[in-house]
Amino acid sequence: MVNTLFLPELREMLASDDRGELEEFCVALNAGRTAEFMEGLDDNEVWRVLQYATPERRAEIFGYFPEVRQVTMLDQEPADQVAALVDEIPADDRVDLMQSLPEQRVGEILNLLPVDARRDIQRLGAYPDGTAGALMTTEVAMLRSDLTSREALEELGRQASDLETIYYLYVVDENQLLLGVVSTRQLVSSLNKPTKTLSEMMESDVIAASVTDHQEEVAQKVEKYNLLAIPVVDDARHLAGIITHDDVIDVVREELEEDAQRIAAVAPLEDSFLEVGLLMLSWKRGIWLTILFFAALLTAFALFHYDRELAQYEWLVWFIPLIISAGGNSGSQSATLVITAMTSGDVAFSDWPKVMKREVIVALTLGGFLALIGYTVAFFLAPSPEDALVIPLTLLLVIFCGCVCGGALPMLFKRLGLDPAMMSNPFVAGIVDILGIVIYINVARLLLTAPL
Amino acid sequence: MVNTLFLPELREMLASDDRGELEEFCVALNAGRTAEFMEGLDDNEVWRVLQYATPERRAEIFGYFPEVRQVTMLDQEPADQVAALVDEIPADDRVDLMQSLPEQRVGEILNLLPVDARRDIQRLGAYPDGTAGALMTTEVAMLRSDLTSREALEELGRQASDLETIYYLYVVDENQLLLGVVSTRQLVSSLNKPTKTLSEMMESDVIAASVTDHQEEVAQKVEKYNLLAIPVVDDARHLAGIITHDDVIDVVREELEEDAQRIAAVAPLEDSFLEVGLLMLSWKRGIWLTILFFAALLTAFALFHYDRELAQYEWLVWFIPLIISAGGNSGSQSATLVITAMTSGDVAFSDWPKVMKREVIVALTLGGFLALIGYTVAFFLAPSPEDALVIPLTLLLVIFCGCVCGGALPMLFKRLGLDPAMMSNPFVAGIVDILGIVIYINVARLLLTAPL
Repeated sequence: MVNTLFLPELREMLASDDRGELEEFCVALNAGRTAEFMEGLDDNEVWRVLQYATPERRAEIFGYFPEVRQVTMLDQEPADQVAALVDEIPADDRVDLMQSLPEQRVGEILNLLPVDARRDIQRLGAYPDGTAGALMTTEVAMLRSDLTSREALEELGRQASDLETIYYLYVVDENQLLLGVVSTRQLVSSLNKPTKTLSEMMESDVIAASVTDHQEEVAQKVEKYNLLAIPVVDDARHLAGIITHDDVIDVVREELEEDAQRIAAVAPLEDSFLEVGLLMLSWKRGIWLTILFFAALLTAFALFHYDRELAQYEWLVWFIPLIISAGGNSGSQSATLVITAMTSGDVAFSDWPKVMKREVIVALTLGGFLALIGYTVAFFLAPSPEDALVIPLTLLLVIFCGCVCGGALPMLFKRLGLDPAMMSNPFVAGIVDILGIVIYINVARLLLTAPL
Repeated sequence: MVNTLFLPELREMLASDDRGELEEFCVALNAGRTAEFMEGLDDNEVWRVLQYATPERRAEIFGYFPEVRQVTMLDQEPADQVAALVDEIPADDRVDLMQSLPEQRVGEILNLLPVDARRDIQRLGAYPDGTAGALMTTEVAMLRSDLTSREALEELGRQASDLETIYYLYVVDENQLLLGVVSTRQLVSSLNKPTKTLSEMMESDVIAASVTDHQEEVAQKVEKYNLLAIPVVDDARHLAGIITHDDVIDVVREELEEDAQRIAAVAPLEDSFLEVGLLMLSWKRGIWLTILFFAALLTAFALFHYDRELAQYEWLVWFIPLIISAGGNSGSQSATLVITAMTSGDVAFSDWPKVMKREVIVALTLGGFLALIGYTVAFFLAPSPEDALVIPLTLLLVIFCGCVCGGALPMLFKRLGLDPAMMSNPFVAGIVDILGIVIYINVARLLLTAPL
């Protein structure tokens, strides 16, 4: 919902170059809300309003616009103004933005940046996507261990405007080796002991991520230890950067969304749903849809194989979709529950006997219940009440197979080092579809009175 | 994976009541890691080790144990020791723990608590689950607006050990009316202007949650504005508490897991997968499995209705599961993509023309491709190459219906105020199954040469 309340006033202020009012507009509200009030302006209008804010505030407000709009502005506005803004954007965000710009434009902007910002962008840009290195920012408070709490607070005050977070200070030696961590909470609590040094206060057992760690591991660590931010170190434990809580929330959301997409047999999208190219979208969906299609093709061959039985007992055909869908649905329930439980750390491989025992009990409960309903319907459609027994018996067996496959396969895939969210549902669907038909026809062969 | 490295030493220290070593063990490491090293001890051993820590540290380490173990310890250890610990646990966590204890035990513990802790637990416990009120803690830094930055820092230092977070200070009047917010970052930055007061520094446009807000809205606000914590206010904007970033991550994870479960047609579980009762699990799965079963029953009636056609063209039967699964899979892909895009805010109802246009193009691409494969197989199984054309044409139409229903229904359900994750897949599956059969038989009627 675009907020249009202030748009006419803003446009009027821009037309009359009303410096006082525009400067006031840029500081009066929370930066996020300021951005919201500008959503209805076009990119160039936004850019012009932003020029009335202080450089720091400008970067803050700019950060609240959607990424597509940010990229357009950085691409189209005057290079010198863009470079001035880029210099103020947090190090991790600006790398992502620069990677979305055309190469030539990136060169133009880099040339206008101070040398340290340029190097920083190049260094951070070198880490592969999805690693801690690519996620971290280099704006981290590094202090020497011999500072007193009061000196540290004062140093922090000087650096505060350049740091992404000031709530953890990392104590390092002259080679940036990570020695310990002190929280601002500790500093503030020891204000009455102004001579206490950081080395006396710091915790030396620092929970850290490595630059090469996958972002999901990093998020799990931050969650497990309830951290506000986690330091990122290289192989030799030199402090390279920091990952803050807001980036962690983004990772958790991204990873879980990808899980949901994988469960529905879509290879995870790299852009948001409306922005990803249609060819790419078709490809990401098409590969798995085709794999599932081949699995389902097997059912066609199976039914072809059982041609004689189906010709003899025509009424069996009517229940084919029902049986297959009951197995598929119970299997996908089990698989999804196990996958989400593994992602959240509730279930490990060693829990498999417990998981299997539970799946068996639930399968018998659910299968028994649906078999009853199935029998009621089959009672009316089948030639005789005895023949109708094929349906409940098949349903019970198929739902049992669905639950057991659905519970077991994700754990097995994880054990084999494969992605359970990606692999499980296609396999469960394929196996249960085929098993469903084989079970159905064999139960029919066994129970039906007329000889086949 | 239980860490067994220190278990023999810990047990020996306990046996010999080695106060010095045990006290050292409780402080040497990060509190989370201390808890990890104790994972292999039984509950009573853990409790005994914890008695060697300072009350504050004890609560911190205790907080890293799984909730089931926490509840057992609070239930079984001496009530006076338990009350002393409960007094130190953060206000939001201890309410959750108390709600898991037997009523009689809660009474015992409450009687041993200081009156303010008792009132606090009773007040927080009154908010319904899933609201901001139930999620918040009352340990929030509230300060008066006439304090200077230095006075504020000193006051904060005094309160620090009792506060869940000290990174935002909320400025209130004598009735706790929320007037503004100052970050510790601002305080630290203005250490060189020691006479500046909070009212001069504070931002008065405070992003806040209401006690009755749903936790998902709260998490979205925190993410949108990149907050470390959000204040919670009552209807008259009196400050009631605060929700911190770690609780927000938990909410994001919980809500997205529930979405994944709903997409797979499981009513969201309230406990973790291995802890939820089997009867409850069967119920949560059974309701949706039954609804899906009734939808699939319609296919049985449809096939019964088309009995004459199926008897005449027996080979049509072989492709029934293939056609139904192609429609179902493409529908669930579309529905899941739209659901996750709506949850993350990438797609709003107003985007429906764009979503539909994209679904149509993707459907034709995917449908066309699978139709080709389908024709290749049907070419060999069908009586004639002309008859085989029924299969690709049906596939194209069914995949088209799957994508369009899958894309449209979640948006429609959301518009109607229903939960799209809950409602979409069962409906999509039901509609596409039935449509699949109706389309199939009618395409066959149209194309097959022998008159029906």
